[in-house]
Amino acid sequence: MAKELTPRSENYSQWYNDLVIKADLAENSAVRGCMVIKPYGYAIWEKMQAELDRMFKETGHVNAYFPLFIPKSFFSKEADHVEGFAKECAVVTHYRLKNSPDGKGVVVDPEAKLEEELIVRPTSETIIWSTYKNWIQSYRDLPILCNQWANVVRWEMRTRLFLRTAEFLWQEGHTAHATEAEAIAEAKQMLEVYADFAERFMAVPVIKGVKSANERFAGALETFCIEALMQDGKALQAGTSHFLGQNFAKAFDVTFVDKNNKQDYVWATSWGVSTRLMGALIMTHSDDHGLVLPPNLAPFQVVIVPIYKNEEQLNAISAKVNEIIPKLKGLEISVKFDNNDTKKPGWKFAEYELKGVPVRLAMGARDLENGTVEVARRDTLTKETVSLEGIEIYIKRLLTDIQANIFNKAIDYRTSVTREVNSYEEFKVEIEKGGFLLCHWDGTPETEEKIKEETKATIRCIPLDGDKTPGVCMVTGKPSAQRVIFARAY
Amino acid sequence: MAKELTPRSENYSQWYNDLVIKADLAENSAVRGCMVIKPYGYAIWEKMQAELDRMFKETGHVNAYFPLFIPKSFFSKEADHVEGFAKECAVVTHYRLKNSPDGKGVVVDPEAKLEEELIVRPTSETIIWSTYKNWIQSYRDLPILCNQWANVVRWEMRTRLFLRTAEFLWQEGHTAHATEAEAIAEAKQMLEVYADFAERFMAVPVIKGVKSANERFAGALETFCIEALMQDGKALQAGTSHFLGQNFAKAFDVTFVDKNNKQDYVWATSWGVSTRLMGALIMTHSDDHGLVLPPNLAPFQVVIVPIYKNEEQLNAISAKVNEIIPKLKGLEISVKFDNNDTKKPGWKFAEYELKGVPVRLAMGARDLENGTVEVARRDTLTKETVSLEGIEIYIKRLLTDIQANIFNKAIDYRTSVTREVNSYEEFKVEIEKGGFLLCHWDGTPETEEKIKEETKATIRCIPLDGDKTPGVCMVTGKPSAQRVIFARAY
Repeated sequence: MAKELTPRSENYSQWYNDLVIKADLAENSAVRGCMVIKPYGYAIWEKMQAELDRMFKETGHVNAYFPLFIPKSFFSKEADHVEGFAKECAVVTHYRLKNSPDGKGVVVDPEAKLEEELIVRPTSETIIWSTYKNWIQSYRDLPILCNQWANVVRWEMRTRLFLRTAEFLWQEGHTAHATEAEAIAEAKQMLEVYADFAERFMAVPVIKGVKSANERFAGALETFCIEALMQDGKALQAGTSHFLGQNFAKAFDVTFVDKNNKQDYVWATSWGVSTRLMGALIMTHSDDHGLVLPPNLAPFQVVIVPIYKNEEQLNAISAKVNEIIPKLKGLEISVKFDNNDTKKPGWKFAEYELKGVPVRLAMGARDLENGTVEVARRDTLTKETVSLEGIEIYIKRLLTDIQANIFNKAIDYRTSVTREVNSYEEFKVEIEKGGFLLCHWDGTPETEEKIKEETKATIRCIPLDGDKTPGVCMVTGKPSAQRVIFARAY
Repeated sequence: MAKELTPRSENYSQWYNDLVIKADLAENSAVRGCMVIKPYGYAIWEKMQAELDRMFKETGHVNAYFPLFIPKSFFSKEADHVEGFAKECAVVTHYRLKNSPDGKGVVVDPEAKLEEELIVRPTSETIIWSTYKNWIQSYRDLPILCNQWANVVRWEMRTRLFLRTAEFLWQEGHTAHATEAEAIAEAKQMLEVYADFAERFMAVPVIKGVKSANERFAGALETFCIEALMQDGKALQAGTSHFLGQNFAKAFDVTFVDKNNKQDYVWATSWGVSTRLMGALIMTHSDDHGLVLPPNLAPFQVVIVPIYKNEEQLNAISAKVNEIIPKLKGLEISVKFDNNDTKKPGWKFAEYELKGVPVRLAMGARDLENGTVEVARRDTLTKETVSLEGIEIYIKRLLTDIQANIFNKAIDYRTSVTREVNSYEEFKVEIEKGGFLLCHWDGTPETEEKIKEETKATIRCIPLDGDKTPGVCMVTGKPSAQRVIFARAY
């Protein structure tokens, strides 16, 4: 079969690539490192966007749009930020092409050189805070709670579809506050929003935590994050929310007059999730047969495939299906009836399995006679024959079941590969097996760096919830405030 | 008053700029020619997007995403297209910055020069058709009906907020078809979608037509367009839909095998509308007091302002308002209750007038006693006192009225400045007065060019509907198939 996937056990990375391509989610483009997000993949991303956007608005945020380009000098204004972001990026140096003197194609017009180069935004703190300077004078202008849906570019050397691409799509929230406490509360609130979205919609369990200094966002005082675990035992950072302190306000001289008529710098947060979430979604649930999509994000939740020998049978089945569809839609179940005559049922079964459609209904002549339909679940690959009487309620419950089941399965997997490790010797053995390792660490960047160099593992986060018992660092024996999570990561 | 606008009669262009800035729609950014779309402006754009997206999906289209960057060589592949688009554009030449040797800031790393320059997309036909080549083998793969919501960059020398900016937001549909007839039908269908959207949602009357060869999209065989007329008598092209023939298929070698097993090039369309529509919306309806928004696109349709002398009164009014709000929302009316205590009612009245909120409700102590509310219409600036009994139904009807009224007002204005002109002498006089001039033209680019040079007027379109009586060209006396529309344009 043309669409067969490399099994996970054989080559996980190849399985992932096969799946992204064969399920029509995305593909590489003619531009190095940039992907094309295909309609089926984009439809999932749109569902993610819609839900996140709703959650952002519910928590008081509004959308706005800031320029794609950032003057080069802006990056130099925040010392840590320039180190983190103004390196591997796309640089616009000219603004005009002209016909080539040899008559073949076009060349860059050397006379159209920009006085100052423009950087295609890798993230927008600098351009946004240069804008906020004009929006903020008084505490009455605060808070500003803006979000932007945008494309960003980071010139990554090694790229992988969705997980690491030169251009990717994301949202970036940028908020401005009158007090430190309010900014920290905002950063934590958005962490909760992300965790809630990941678990309830993506069915991806996540651990909420803060990053160690080494892994912190360039320019942040604190980076909150949600960390997910993929089926190969590697971690994936699924979203971050940064408390930026007054760093960007100072860099762009953004001050305000408070209620007591005192001038102060404004407090900031930023937070984002990206098309990388698509990678997390795929790698958490899918299997060797293809995608497994959570019903809450599936472009269509149910596909109906008619099984027929002749046109007469197809017509009879279609008539029955056209009675069922409005009932399903009435319960807000999205459904596709695939009556395409150029493909056989077997081909369709494989195709929708590959594409992760949560529920497949198959209806043949005998079903018509019996008033039944065959219902197949994508998550368990099980089938049963069900009466058409009240089928919509049955399907509605089934979708809820599937959503819960794949979430629980992911939780179970994570639990099975999360363990405490107490010595560095043990750590070196265990890290090879993957999963989350809960270890004591002395809190220094040096120790973290040593562990990373020797084992390729990083601190994914210092968990906010759970065991807070102190101990001693597995490497140095120095005091440790609590166990942190180590893993190898995407 | 700080927020007063320059009157239209004094300086229309300044009025427009004042309005965009003071109504918090958009502003210029630190990057030449790039705008910041502020939350209030973006909320209108989001409403436009939501409706257009719904209409695209209803007509069978799906969204996808293609790269921001286009290899320079791609532009040379379609001869007309390179002339039209690969000139004033943002050119990425490098992919890395490094710390400046003098320790101050960052500089472009000369070693990180791209082998081939990348162009920030001014439009995506080339990158998309290079992708479609891999998607299309057989007639079974057709049609492809993709749309993309994206940012594009055209390095305009003179920019104006929304109307002409270096970066702008838009959607671009790109479809691929097996037959010429199907592609033409698609291009025409999208023209109808655009016209329907402009008239029913923006309340902007448009004329549907085709462009003359001079004004055609670079690479198209036929450009369909909708043309609107602004209050200063200048035309604004509000949307275009192109029949591209087989030009891009030939440029990127995209062929398919048809039902008879014959190989042929694929037929194409593309169509787009942009944030320019915001300019059309503003300039069609607004007045010297500020924006006038059609209820179908207003971020909120109703604002409620309490008039109170003390907290007790405010509490009583708020209690009543909180009874009204759910009733309005129940009829899908969006509403904002502005109980901000730091602003006076007079300030709020002026602010919401400036922001074009269709209906303002003001409620004071006497209204409470009488069970009434003061209802003010933004479009007519009239007020009346209305009973709270059934207020939601009253408001619902009022919003429908306002939507119809501003559309009819725009139609009336257009009718009043649309006239037939039969001699070039008369034309030169009339064009100074603005409006649409219906004239006979001999169909040649030379005559159109001469008229443009001498009068700055262009053919806005050859109308699809209306009078098709032949005549003689007002300039050359040669035969003319029908009157065409001349105007000066944005």
